Amino acid sequence: VAPPAVVSDLRSAVGDAHVLVDEDARAGYETDWSGRYTGRAVAVVRPGTTHEVAEVLRICRTAGVDVVPQGGNTGLVGGGVPRPEGSTERPAIVLSTRRLGGVSAADPDAMQLTAGAGVTIAEWQAAARAVGLDAPLDFAARDSATVGGAIATNAGGSRVLRFGTMRSQVAGIEAVLADGRVVGSLAGLPKETAGLHWPSVLTGSEGTLAVVTAARLRLVPRFEHVVTALVATASIGEAVDLTGRLRRQLGSLDSVEIIDPAALALVGGHLGRAAPVTPPPGGAALLVECAGHVDPTSDLVAALGDIAGDSAVAVDPLQRAHLIAFRDRITEAMNQASAGGVPPFKLDVAVPLGALEELAAVARRAAADDGCRLIAFGHLAEGNLHLNHLGARDPATIAATVLSAVADLGGTISAEHGIGIAKTPWLHLVRSSADLGAQAAVRAALDPAGILNPGVLAPRPPAIGRAATPTAPQVP
Amino acid sequence: VAPPAVVSDLRSAVGDAHVLVDEDARAGYETDWSGRYTGRAVAVVRPGTTHEVAEVLRICRTAGVDVVPQGGNTGLVGGGVPRPEGSTERPAIVLSTRRLGGVSAADPDAMQLTAGAGVTIAEWQAAARAVGLDAPLDFAARDSATVGGAIATNAGGSRVLRFGTMRSQVAGIEAVLADGRVVGSLAGLPKETAGLHWPSVLTGSEGTLAVVTAARLRLVPRFEHVVTALVATASIGEAVDLTGRLRRQLGSLDSVEIIDPAALALVGGHLGRAAPVTPPPGGAALLVECAGHVDPTSDLVAALGDIAGDSAVAVDPLQRAHLIAFRDRITEAMNQASAGGVPPFKLDVAVPLGALEELAAVARRAAADDGCRLIAFGHLAEGNLHLNHLGARDPATIAATVLSAVADLGGTISAEHGIGIAKTPWLHLVRSSADLGAQAAVRAALDPAGILNPGVLAPRPPAIGRAATPTAPQVP
Repeated sequence: VAPPAVVSDLRSAVGDAHVLVDEDARAGYETDWSGRYTGRAVAVVRPGTTHEVAEVLRICRTAGVDVVPQGGNTGLVGGGVPRPEGSTERPAIVLSTRRLGGVSAADPDAMQLTAGAGVTIAEWQAAARAVGLDAPLDFAARDSATVGGAIATNAGGSRVLRFGTMRSQVAGIEAVLADGRVVGSLAGLPKETAGLHWPSVLTGSEGTLAVVTAARLRLVPRFEHVVTALVATASIGEAVDLTGRLRRQLGSLDSVEIIDPAALALVGGHLGRAAPVTPPPGGAALLVECAGHVDPTSDLVAALGDIAGDSAVAVDPLQRAHLIAFRDRITEAMNQASAGGVPPFKLDVAVPLGALEELAAVARRAAADDGCRLIAFGHLAEGNLHLNHLGARDPATIAATVLSAVADLGGTISAEHGIGIAKTPWLHLVRSSADLGAQAAVRAALDPAGILNPGVLAPRPPAIGRAATPTAPQVP
Repeated sequence: VAPPAVVSDLRSAVGDAHVLVDEDARAGYETDWSGRYTGRAVAVVRPGTTHEVAEVLRICRTAGVDVVPQGGNTGLVGGGVPRPEGSTERPAIVLSTRRLGGVSAADPDAMQLTAGAGVTIAEWQAAARAVGLDAPLDFAARDSATVGGAIATNAGGSRVLRFGTMRSQVAGIEAVLADGRVVGSLAGLPKETAGLHWPSVLTGSEGTLAVVTAARLRLVPRFEHVVTALVATASIGEAVDLTGRLRRQLGSLDSVEIIDPAALALVGGHLGRAAPVTPPPGGAALLVECAGHVDPTSDLVAALGDIAGDSAVAVDPLQRAHLIAFRDRITEAMNQASAGGVPPFKLDVAVPLGALEELAAVARRAAADDGCRLIAFGHLAEGNLHLNHLGARDPATIAATVLSAVADLGGTISAEHGIGIAKTPWLHLVRSSADLGAQAAVRAALDPAGILNPGVLAPRPPAIGRAATPTAPQVP
């Protein structure tokens, strides 16, 4: 329980209407969208300015109250909702950044705009398109996920191949440290070598180093011509080779998504129509998209070469949408397939490209051993597979098996979802003790009291300035 | 003076041949190429492996000896040579990374290779080109500058517009902390969200957080078709507008370099031929380069539009070289013009694009007030001007005037050269005390004894673990 004075101090800082203490009002912030992660906040605080964020942090630090920053609450690893009850020693607030809105006019020469942390990815895209440009980032949760959340998790999505992850899109940042000091700059200089680069340090830090309040974001050209292809490959090795060739040959290549045969069959059943290509077991379908100021269709067809025979290519928007549905609606198909049951158990892993075939084999074996249904898809150029286990009996064993194999293959246990609290038990697989020790030192340097998102990214709260009570990780 | 045991310990660690103590042997490492920055090292140590780097750091930390990491010694801000005598309280070694060589075979599908910190930029380019790819980074010092140095200074150069700075090229990193612990990974995963991203944290840290020993580097396609144009614009505003249009319209745009009329005249005199275009006073010449798998010439000419009349476009390699010389040989022309005298006083600044015209005006006024000759050129898309003052009488006043204006315009006092020791007196202009305090805390967390490159990036050595003796900044 928080000292009673805290809530009244918070009300003074941000206004009564923006401190939610009623259970019903808090509920949507205390539990993630999947229902898997939940905790208790003494209040949900919705500051509307950077100054108010600073005030909230000062109040919480003084009172010894933890702060869980939250954007659109679309995270998948439990990092944006309060820790499970009993797992932390101090009360917590949720600091919702959704009211930190506002998008500046886009600068068409610098190809940048400034957005508050609470601006959604879709709003960023819309503001860019209003001046004939586009946002370099896109993923399914675009209507809810926020700029601040995308920074915190270094969000990826389908256009990483061409434009990089969120880290590559942040030209400037404004953030508030745990003690209320504001750091960073929104000038958006593409080149500056004058000490610590805050966009780089804070992107991917999952709310543990500072609360991001605004960012200067990169824009990219809006392309008039888009072509989409769905291609079947006989093996994952062939898919890797093909993607390498496309990357080297096609400047217009925007994305290469991989869909395993089981996922293709599932989504086909959901859509009520079979996919136009049928990869064999052990093979894969690739959804390839090229975009340019000049029509890239003939280049794409030429680059597909021999494989073009087993592919469908579409330029017409409606025909493109028919192909894209085989990737975009997999999650919906899985949710329907598991309706009434538990949501699929998800892993988000990546390995060096040469190891992707082996990773897929390991995942198939682990699913077979469990007896669950494996639906795999992802972003091929980054070696990133989303492994979804429907009806998994023993998720912990699947996780231990797959994540250990991923680590042995030189991969990562989290490509784009983050560590949150879901993956902390396995972080040691991909980070040495020297690495984790150095990270903890940096975190303690910026947040000595350890109030920012404790338990996230670390198996236990930082030991400095507080008792080292282990947080029980919530193994899904 | 170092404890005598240190040198013998260092010899045991890396071998007698790689600990240079004779004055003649040390000389090339103690003074920068311009002769402006110099100091005294008790030894120059040249470890050949990551393990040896770790040993060297452990020995120095135990003995209380500072460590100045050095790559190709092509830096421009005094950050890679020992501090001026009398300005530090402890003896220092130079840790040369040049023997950390070795380039792996390039992975054509991942489009990456692994390089030791001592590999030169030219070697990186050659290894990429051997497999039909290219390095995304290029700048004049390519034959001497190293991968480690480029990481330390977040090097830029001419291709930043298309591919980003060095920060965007580092997919993986291996580095040794001040206490000898090794952090990072060379797996090169394009997407990983699993805590602190070492490539991001260490790039641009100027040797103050760790010693980089190797990196996994990005490769880009090698384009068959290259077209170069030299274009005159009537004003810098027109140059900014044109560049914005080219960026939005041309996917093949590789670089846009700006050359002021005085620079164009100087280099023309040096080359013995006038430039094919003549921008008016207050205008600028742009050297534009496009590269692609498809010939971009007609797209470039179309995008130049009305301005194409006052431009020269070349596709033939020899004709291209004739145009490129007007940018690449400016430094040579300046050195000749100031032969026998002091080298030009250099500033490397960037401002938001909308302020570039004003920056140029400020720089012209400051040079006129001093009575020196101003030669300005740089990288237009990043708002980055290199201001070179030939025969400057009062560099400190020029610096104070220009750098204050840059800060007022929302710019940076160092775009791509770094802060080193040359710019520390002005760092407060672009960084708040909150910002500098947080940076010092991060630095102290990773290097509590403050042995790594003291005096660089901070007006004085970190106060933690040592007496806070101010380093006298060496104002050029």
